[in-house]
Amino acid sequence: MRAVDIIIKKRDHGVLTRDEINFFVAGYTRGDIPDYQAASFAMAVLLNGMTDQETTDLTLAMALSGVMLDLSDTVGVVVDKHSSGGVGDKTTLSVLPMVAACGLPVGKMSGRGLGFSGGTLDKLESIPGFRVNLTTDEFKKQLKEIGVVLTGQSLDLAPADGKLYALRDVTGTVDSIPLIASSIMCKKLAGGAHAIVLDVKVGNGAFMTDLEKARHLATLMTSIGRLAGREVVTLLGDMNQPLGMAVGNALELREAVETLQGKGGEEYTEHCLVVGTHMLILGKLAANEQEARAMLEKSIVSGAAFEKFRQLVTAQGGDVSVIDDLNQLPAAPVRVDVLAEQTGWLAGLHARTIGEASVVLGAGRAKKTDSIDHSVGFVFHKKVGDAIEKGQPLCTIHATSREAARVAGESIRAACQYSESPVQPLPHFHI
Amino acid sequence: MRAVDIIIKKRDHGVLTRDEINFFVAGYTRGDIPDYQAASFAMAVLLNGMTDQETTDLTLAMALSGVMLDLSDTVGVVVDKHSSGGVGDKTTLSVLPMVAACGLPVGKMSGRGLGFSGGTLDKLESIPGFRVNLTTDEFKKQLKEIGVVLTGQSLDLAPADGKLYALRDVTGTVDSIPLIASSIMCKKLAGGAHAIVLDVKVGNGAFMTDLEKARHLATLMTSIGRLAGREVVTLLGDMNQPLGMAVGNALELREAVETLQGKGGEEYTEHCLVVGTHMLILGKLAANEQEARAMLEKSIVSGAAFEKFRQLVTAQGGDVSVIDDLNQLPAAPVRVDVLAEQTGWLAGLHARTIGEASVVLGAGRAKKTDSIDHSVGFVFHKKVGDAIEKGQPLCTIHATSREAARVAGESIRAACQYSESPVQPLPHFHI
Repeated sequence: MRAVDIIIKKRDHGVLTRDEINFFVAGYTRGDIPDYQAASFAMAVLLNGMTDQETTDLTLAMALSGVMLDLSDTVGVVVDKHSSGGVGDKTTLSVLPMVAACGLPVGKMSGRGLGFSGGTLDKLESIPGFRVNLTTDEFKKQLKEIGVVLTGQSLDLAPADGKLYALRDVTGTVDSIPLIASSIMCKKLAGGAHAIVLDVKVGNGAFMTDLEKARHLATLMTSIGRLAGREVVTLLGDMNQPLGMAVGNALELREAVETLQGKGGEEYTEHCLVVGTHMLILGKLAANEQEARAMLEKSIVSGAAFEKFRQLVTAQGGDVSVIDDLNQLPAAPVRVDVLAEQTGWLAGLHARTIGEASVVLGAGRAKKTDSIDHSVGFVFHKKVGDAIEKGQPLCTIHATSREAARVAGESIRAACQYSESPVQPLPHFHI
Repeated sequence: MRAVDIIIKKRDHGVLTRDEINFFVAGYTRGDIPDYQAASFAMAVLLNGMTDQETTDLTLAMALSGVMLDLSDTVGVVVDKHSSGGVGDKTTLSVLPMVAACGLPVGKMSGRGLGFSGGTLDKLESIPGFRVNLTTDEFKKQLKEIGVVLTGQSLDLAPADGKLYALRDVTGTVDSIPLIASSIMCKKLAGGAHAIVLDVKVGNGAFMTDLEKARHLATLMTSIGRLAGREVVTLLGDMNQPLGMAVGNALELREAVETLQGKGGEEYTEHCLVVGTHMLILGKLAANEQEARAMLEKSIVSGAAFEKFRQLVTAQGGDVSVIDDLNQLPAAPVRVDVLAEQTGWLAGLHARTIGEASVVLGAGRAKKTDSIDHSVGFVFHKKVGDAIEKGQPLCTIHATSREAARVAGESIRAACQYSESPVQPLPHFHI
């Protein structure tokens, strides 16, 4: 078998066998197949597509390219969640403590933010001392002891995906549904998940801007999961406005913690309850949605979810006093309100524009090696569908300087759309 | 400008600007743009195509990536020829001395054989001592002194093409008409050609097996030439049977020399006259085809063409006594005839099968690093359309052993097709 023949077969619209895909992925992982062959292969896949079976075989081959984490000695049903990323998406920070407090042990490997899209690890690092580089042994031990872990992606898991993902970024081959789906799913499989809740974000602040493409990605990942013997629930989360009220690392962490304390906004709380409900059902801790939702609501009211988050912070070396007094979180010196320019209803809050403005402000990265400022960002006071009055604060900008705040203010104003007649709120999820 | 954005533009069916193509080719030549980006770009070009203007811009960018040979101080109109390769194609060996003997100085850089397709340099190296690695200064000096040069491709010419060609070979991106056309034409332009006769071979023994694709390639190369300010004449040479009677290096050299001596077969001689006619017209040495043909025929009859070949061999260090006595050429120890299996007409002589059999016999290379045996090959006695009688010799195999001859004999028999009713000879050229 030769790599070039596999490339040619895909170039000529052929359907690759499992053996061919395994040969290519194993060779690429070992370095026998060079980057230039993988690049040409990726472009052929992007332009000519893959069947569900090919995508599943690619996913499994990448999952098997490194260590396969086995957590079944620690957890009965290993349930994972994944969001395809967006603006203000701090769901993991709230949902994991909630479901763990309900008795479902959950350990998750998360990523960093890039471009307009934020990352869970960056938000966690707003807490002084918090470690996101746990070893596999530490991961397992903590999962057993307190039932909740939140750390970075281990380099041992799915190394083929790590290589291919970096290559795709520089060869124009990111935007391929089979390659996106296999990249997400192989990490979940290598991480030992038996069941997965996938929140595919769709909208101007997501990687998928088109509902049809998002639905295709969701369907494909469900199909991969089932072909690989895993249970998968997919959601299509709206990402046309930021999720929740806060955008920016410490600001989002505060919102996530306040939500665990029962002080979160209705929209973000509801989002967390929906995701958590599916996790509890997949984890066999609840028989149906009503039961699951009641358990999650109770975890908030009883203080158990917040206590679980405190345990998480303590276990991973974070300064828990910051969680007990959120005013100790990194804070920006300049706060400026953006005021509503007219009376009526808020009709748009362009998530992509806001995400990009947060990068300019210092909350995110234009490229991987950029450093970030945990303190800066935005706190919105209104969401799409809310009635507003001219001069009312729409958003508070947290910035390091008045000039930075002025520039951000222009972006926020550009992101806002108004209507003189009532506007429906955006859906939490698309169907 | 970023390489990845140029890749994405082509991936998304965009038309690249000259600046974008120049940026990509210059960056790739310098090594700033790595192989993996060029590989993904090449696959996008293969699958999405290029306009004639894009292909011309790519050709010029690759031509300008190295030294541009200027022969205008040596030759009035620099005329080059190119054949896209096939089985038994020794045209250059006969045509160059013929046109040079008619007064048109011609210097040509040729290649080696690979796979079923032979190469001019390998055939020339049947002559002991013949040098094919002339420097640019030697090239120019010899062109001035004797009006004929036949050497290898200089590494200084079109280095971008050299890199890209090697990359295409291992990334499944050879079979793209714009990439093939630009690769051929950039070397012609860098070699200083003002006018070019292109013989695009079409048939089962050529890289283009399909007449429509061959015509597309020919049209595209004409268009590139004209957009680049060069005169181009294209021919579509038939390659469904070997060209001429001999296949194999020394055997083809013998046929080429015998043709210069007026002892060549009708078909191959006619082929050379057609190519030479166009060269003389492009070189302004003949006003029309009749005049050119008469000049070329006279060069054979007068002995001037043969004498020019002797000068070429002497100038490049070859042993001219081998040319004066062709029996001194490398000769294989075993000769075995393949006999006609039935009486009737020869209906097929599958060029690809014969070319591949010559590689197995040792006359060609399966991969670039293989060494070759100059002595072995085939001499055919009949061509498609000839009447034959059962038991009559169709072909003589020249081999190093009886076993090698037996294996080759099976391939030759498989390559032959018979008919009980008369068969038209194959055309020299398609229209």
